[in-house]
Amino acid sequence: MKQHFIDLAILFTFLGSVCFSQTEQPAMLEDFKPSTLNQPGQQYPQVNSQGYARFRIVAPKAQSVSVSLGLGGRGGTVLTRAADSTWVGTTTGPLDKGFHYYHLTIDGGIFNDPGTLNFYGSTRWESGIEIPAPDEEFYALKNIPHGNVQQILFPSKSTNTSRRAFVYTPPDYDKGHARRYPVLYLQHGWGEDETAWSNQGRANLIMDNLIAGGKIKPFLIVMTYGMTNEIKFGGLRNFDIKPFQTVLVDELIPYIDAHFRTLSDQPHRAMAGLSMGGMETKSITTANLDKFSHIGLFSGGTFSMDDVNKTPGFKKKVKLVFVSFGSRELEGNRGGRGFWGGDPKVNADSLKQAGINSVFYVSPETAHEFLSWRRSLREFAPLLFKN
Amino acid sequence: MKQHFIDLAILFTFLGSVCFSQTEQPAMLEDFKPSTLNQPGQQYPQVNSQGYARFRIVAPKAQSVSVSLGLGGRGGTVLTRAADSTWVGTTTGPLDKGFHYYHLTIDGGIFNDPGTLNFYGSTRWESGIEIPAPDEEFYALKNIPHGNVQQILFPSKSTNTSRRAFVYTPPDYDKGHARRYPVLYLQHGWGEDETAWSNQGRANLIMDNLIAGGKIKPFLIVMTYGMTNEIKFGGLRNFDIKPFQTVLVDELIPYIDAHFRTLSDQPHRAMAGLSMGGMETKSITTANLDKFSHIGLFSGGTFSMDDVNKTPGFKKKVKLVFVSFGSRELEGNRGGRGFWGGDPKVNADSLKQAGINSVFYVSPETAHEFLSWRRSLREFAPLLFKN
Repeated sequence: MKQHFIDLAILFTFLGSVCFSQTEQPAMLEDFKPSTLNQPGQQYPQVNSQGYARFRIVAPKAQSVSVSLGLGGRGGTVLTRAADSTWVGTTTGPLDKGFHYYHLTIDGGIFNDPGTLNFYGSTRWESGIEIPAPDEEFYALKNIPHGNVQQILFPSKSTNTSRRAFVYTPPDYDKGHARRYPVLYLQHGWGEDETAWSNQGRANLIMDNLIAGGKIKPFLIVMTYGMTNEIKFGGLRNFDIKPFQTVLVDELIPYIDAHFRTLSDQPHRAMAGLSMGGMETKSITTANLDKFSHIGLFSGGTFSMDDVNKTPGFKKKVKLVFVSFGSRELEGNRGGRGFWGGDPKVNADSLKQAGINSVFYVSPETAHEFLSWRRSLREFAPLLFKN
Repeated sequence: MKQHFIDLAILFTFLGSVCFSQTEQPAMLEDFKPSTLNQPGQQYPQVNSQGYARFRIVAPKAQSVSVSLGLGGRGGTVLTRAADSTWVGTTTGPLDKGFHYYHLTIDGGIFNDPGTLNFYGSTRWESGIEIPAPDEEFYALKNIPHGNVQQILFPSKSTNTSRRAFVYTPPDYDKGHARRYPVLYLQHGWGEDETAWSNQGRANLIMDNLIAGGKIKPFLIVMTYGMTNEIKFGGLRNFDIKPFQTVLVDELIPYIDAHFRTLSDQPHRAMAGLSMGGMETKSITTANLDKFSHIGLFSGGTFSMDDVNKTPGFKKKVKLVFVSFGSRELEGNRGGRGFWGGDPKVNADSLKQAGINSVFYVSPETAHEFLSWRRSLREFAPLLFKN
């Protein structure tokens, strides 16, 4: 298993640099509007209808200002000094749709863009920008009944702390005091924390919209910190899933079942995660099939028949294996070769042929980023707790 | 009333610059530790046992770096370039205990310190630093039962949006499904929003600690955005309390009473606010004495007998008038002269003599900042809902 973690880390690093459209660039339209993630009253950064992003930074005496977002790799976008001593620049083409992290480099130091909100990624609070997607309605804030996102602080003996988690409760949770609900445990990726799925993932709004549309039966989502951020890329040899497994399985799950109206049996408990959270999901669910029945890996590895065969009771106990990727993660020569554990589509098909409820999903024109994972949650949620 | 708002705004502006100890400075001890509000793994900013703050910023090619925090007014602390091309500086004396907002100025541009967490104040997300206080235990995260902080999205016809609020529910809220609770509506100040009382105010931890210590009977706290941030200082002439009053009284309160197990009668509903939130509290409660019985103004004005006399039913309906300030707000010639509405202590005494349950509290050695308001909540909460 340790070797697998290392390969996954290399994969994630590689994918992280493929975040942008690589097609021919269309002529840029001058219809820029403030990004929807801007701080109140802030006019920049802006996004146009094609997905170009424009930045404007006030730093009159700076020598150089650049933005980490841009086409074609790590160079980002170099801003130039305008007549009014602000620094302005536009990406050389449209960015992929959806959410992107970024930061500024000002005179050699790394800072956030004061124009926009911050999101926890890369083990720190980074700037975020949102490129409107054609299907953005599914994660939009609408005039419908809304569930709550509850911050809980649960006791953890194994780490000798009160640990934080967020719990999504659906709109009708406060209505019927007899009704009990299934639970999905949903993990963030490396560099992120328990805030990611609500803030950049919009998991609560995705759920609200699915429920209002009659597409799912309501369930709870629990999001906590996966303790992954001490791991540096290349340092995964020492990664041990046990400390987090203890927190999740022995401490958080009993707390949730004691404090929320849950259905606490195996058929009504699922786990999913993105990127390294998918790796954690695979490790923890296969080691605890008496507790989890539905499994989701979003850009975080695959399940092969080898995995199934070496896990006693898998076919009987697992009611869903959902594996997804962004299409750009599968492009080029990575399909079937670069992937650890084999081609994920081929693996998913082989599970299906073996009689396992195996679903494979590819998010169109997205990379190892949050629009892939928002869409993965949208596709995964309606498949849960059917039995 | 409009003239009062203007005077208050001038007061707040003035008080905002008096945030630091003005006494003789002791010799600085070299026992600096990372501030408790730093981002994970970050070593700077640091604070020593006396309350000096030290900053370290990486910006190798910058021309100038300064920090807005410092002694003696607006100059802040100018950092100097160290041998390793970082910028380092220490305040020239101890800062007041408690929480302070700050930001960096780098080559003429305003940015946040990448070392620390951000908090919404001054109408934007700013850096924060925490100076340990002698009584910090009352807002510390302890190994005791914790309540939840729930993000809710409630429909608002008057503003045609889904608006956000946070609801603190006490530790036993999920236990007894029959028990109902009183509610405190708690407002932030100008430049802040609905996140302030949980993030920089630590209202949930203050409540958890009071409840664990048997000092209060549990109640809910509801925190929403006071719509104050469109108001620029000096532009208060146009401020109208009605739009926020409509959201709070006609939309939020009914939503809370429908979705949470509240005691929804006047004796079990309180309102309090800090700074401009205190001003809002005074306006809204006196206009709605059929809905509110307990009133708290934290560094946000006073109640005089004039106020009482011009408000029909005040003596009968109001069960508590709590007024508080930081001691530095009362220092010098402001006591009894600079205050709009008269000396707050004299006013509080006059209400008491008139038979009103009037409590006046002064937070020791703090200014117009959050330690004053954390302490005000600690003092206010045990006085609520006694009847």
